[in-house]
Amino acid sequence: MSKRYTLLKKDGEARRGEFRTPHGVIQTPVFMNVGTLAAIKGAVSSMDLKEIGCQVELSNTYHLHLRPTDTVVAKMGGLHKFMNWDRPILTDSGGFQVFSLAQMRKIKEEGVYFNSHIDGKKIFMGPEESMQIQSNLASTIAMAFDECIEIPSPRDYVERSVERTTRWLERCKIEMDRLNSLEGTINKEQMLFGINQGAIFQDLRINHAKTISKFDLDGYAIGGLAVGETHEEMYRTIESVVEYLPQDKPIYLMGVGTPSNILEAVSRGVDFFDCVLPARNGRHGHVFTKHGKINIMNAKFELDSNPIDEGCQCPACKNYSRAYIRHLFKAKEMLAMRLCVLHNLYFYNKLMEDIRNAIDGGYFQDFKAQKHEEWGVKA
Amino acid sequence: MSKRYTLLKKDGEARRGEFRTPHGVIQTPVFMNVGTLAAIKGAVSSMDLKEIGCQVELSNTYHLHLRPTDTVVAKMGGLHKFMNWDRPILTDSGGFQVFSLAQMRKIKEEGVYFNSHIDGKKIFMGPEESMQIQSNLASTIAMAFDECIEIPSPRDYVERSVERTTRWLERCKIEMDRLNSLEGTINKEQMLFGINQGAIFQDLRINHAKTISKFDLDGYAIGGLAVGETHEEMYRTIESVVEYLPQDKPIYLMGVGTPSNILEAVSRGVDFFDCVLPARNGRHGHVFTKHGKINIMNAKFELDSNPIDEGCQCPACKNYSRAYIRHLFKAKEMLAMRLCVLHNLYFYNKLMEDIRNAIDGGYFQDFKAQKHEEWGVKA
Repeated sequence: MSKRYTLLKKDGEARRGEFRTPHGVIQTPVFMNVGTLAAIKGAVSSMDLKEIGCQVELSNTYHLHLRPTDTVVAKMGGLHKFMNWDRPILTDSGGFQVFSLAQMRKIKEEGVYFNSHIDGKKIFMGPEESMQIQSNLASTIAMAFDECIEIPSPRDYVERSVERTTRWLERCKIEMDRLNSLEGTINKEQMLFGINQGAIFQDLRINHAKTISKFDLDGYAIGGLAVGETHEEMYRTIESVVEYLPQDKPIYLMGVGTPSNILEAVSRGVDFFDCVLPARNGRHGHVFTKHGKINIMNAKFELDSNPIDEGCQCPACKNYSRAYIRHLFKAKEMLAMRLCVLHNLYFYNKLMEDIRNAIDGGYFQDFKAQKHEEWGVKA
Repeated sequence: MSKRYTLLKKDGEARRGEFRTPHGVIQTPVFMNVGTLAAIKGAVSSMDLKEIGCQVELSNTYHLHLRPTDTVVAKMGGLHKFMNWDRPILTDSGGFQVFSLAQMRKIKEEGVYFNSHIDGKKIFMGPEESMQIQSNLASTIAMAFDECIEIPSPRDYVERSVERTTRWLERCKIEMDRLNSLEGTINKEQMLFGINQGAIFQDLRINHAKTISKFDLDGYAIGGLAVGETHEEMYRTIESVVEYLPQDKPIYLMGVGTPSNILEAVSRGVDFFDCVLPARNGRHGHVFTKHGKINIMNAKFELDSNPIDEGCQCPACKNYSRAYIRHLFKAKEMLAMRLCVLHNLYFYNKLMEDIRNAIDGGYFQDFKAQKHEEWGVKA
């Protein structure tokens, strides 16, 4: 396999790179747009994603395993065909959802026994099952099956959990290699990213980072953050871990976060991001602007003929006023959510483009400070 | 005022025409796409309407008077600016909604006293108020304020109601002329269509048609149908009335109906249609195809890689399979409704285009018979 990740430029610790995949080249740093069930919540289609500058779509293994099932997706030719999206797709491992959504969870060495949050059905998922499901989904990048540990958790529990996550990673790697070599596999070049865990115990995080770096994986993620720790703890953890992960592979901070979180993480060397926040905020009428977040339902926008964000080139801002979108929310028209989700995702994708340009141009630190000032965020 | 309606060709009683408006020419027969609250239910925007071949958007006076209020719409420059739609808009008079939605309704000579269905607020609407609201909305075509009579109703009630509707029409015309001459009016060329009533009493319908024909209006509608009568009663009523309405003005059948209803009404000389049916059906996964209506949630579509309707050029059919759209419904993704509404509206708009071509080509009767056979509808 030829080299997938190319570091094009560094600006401080911020990295500008390219990641080659069978579904096209990803320009990094990148924000992945979350389409849990093979669709973006808020009536946003894969066609819309192209219009708002999305490079990578992210879908959820746990959700798709339950509905419509990965067997159905495989029979339909994999996720790319199913949702009509020809660019890269990353699937998570199902681990996070098993730990956050499923009921009656029992963690054993072999994997996790749990009940479906939809109908209570008993399900088992271990490293092999996660790889098999993701192979059926035929995503571009599969994530290793891990335990996402609650914060705070006792040190001895975290220690044992992280060791098990390492053993699970080994099993994931073996199973993914096997699946990629099978005749009937849809995407035989499916990649595997490992996940660093260790809660906020810096030494456990670092040890685990060193351990998983020895596996020849396609990329590395920092998992288990943005689950209750402070921003400072999150940033410190990223700083500790990044230098112990392979520098010739992309680094992915899972489930993070606000625009400010992203700037801070980029400045610490992170390349990949994903978060439900922009879509979820959009569905509630909370929209990002160059002057911070606003609530479009505020009475002061009743007669405001300006777009959500002046100068924004998203489909909502190019065509509609704040007053109109506010009316749609008040009138409970679905179009309200759609327009705000489109705007927020565009805002994130455009932010990443601006970040890439800033690193290319060698002015990332200034850019970061300027953005924090504009948004009214203390850096 | 130059002549607005031009009859281009007749095929039997079916009329192929053009209707010139300040917002562009409408090719008739035409289906108007219903956007009650200045948006199509199902997260469909005015941008989407262009893509699915919509010529005329229809919004509801009663709903917009309550939310966001016509005063707000007027301050925002009228409906066209508010919803970013530069083609013709027709607003109904509010009459139908006052009679079907509002509570505690009292009909007097001056107008109707009722309570808002949203917050119970007491409201009065008469002919003058309806014209004032529609003038504020600044639609291309305003509808006269009438009483939409329940079917069945006693003959003597219908008689008295129709006479009042005529008196109201007179007041509408005077008020519309006055509003169009005011300095601050947004659309000084707002047109007014009168509405024929009379339930299913053919002689009352005919008398009323003759009476309203004497008013020099821009078009004439047949109202109060599709509210409980049989299809045969509806078709008979259309037949009775059409010949007594001015032949040099467009004829609009309000709130009708199925694709088959439309073919039948066109063959009896109707030019304008509107109906919530395609959007409402779409939101429930009931989609129109060249072989009749199907329920996309049916289990047999689980692995169906075909589009909703083979050969259809709508955004849903060009990009997604039945299996994917079925999954979206099962997973309660809003995108499901959006795709089905887009498809159904496209289906209706395309049907009208095919009807126009059939009249142009002189093969409308064959076309109608063929469609009924394909859809499995008894003609």
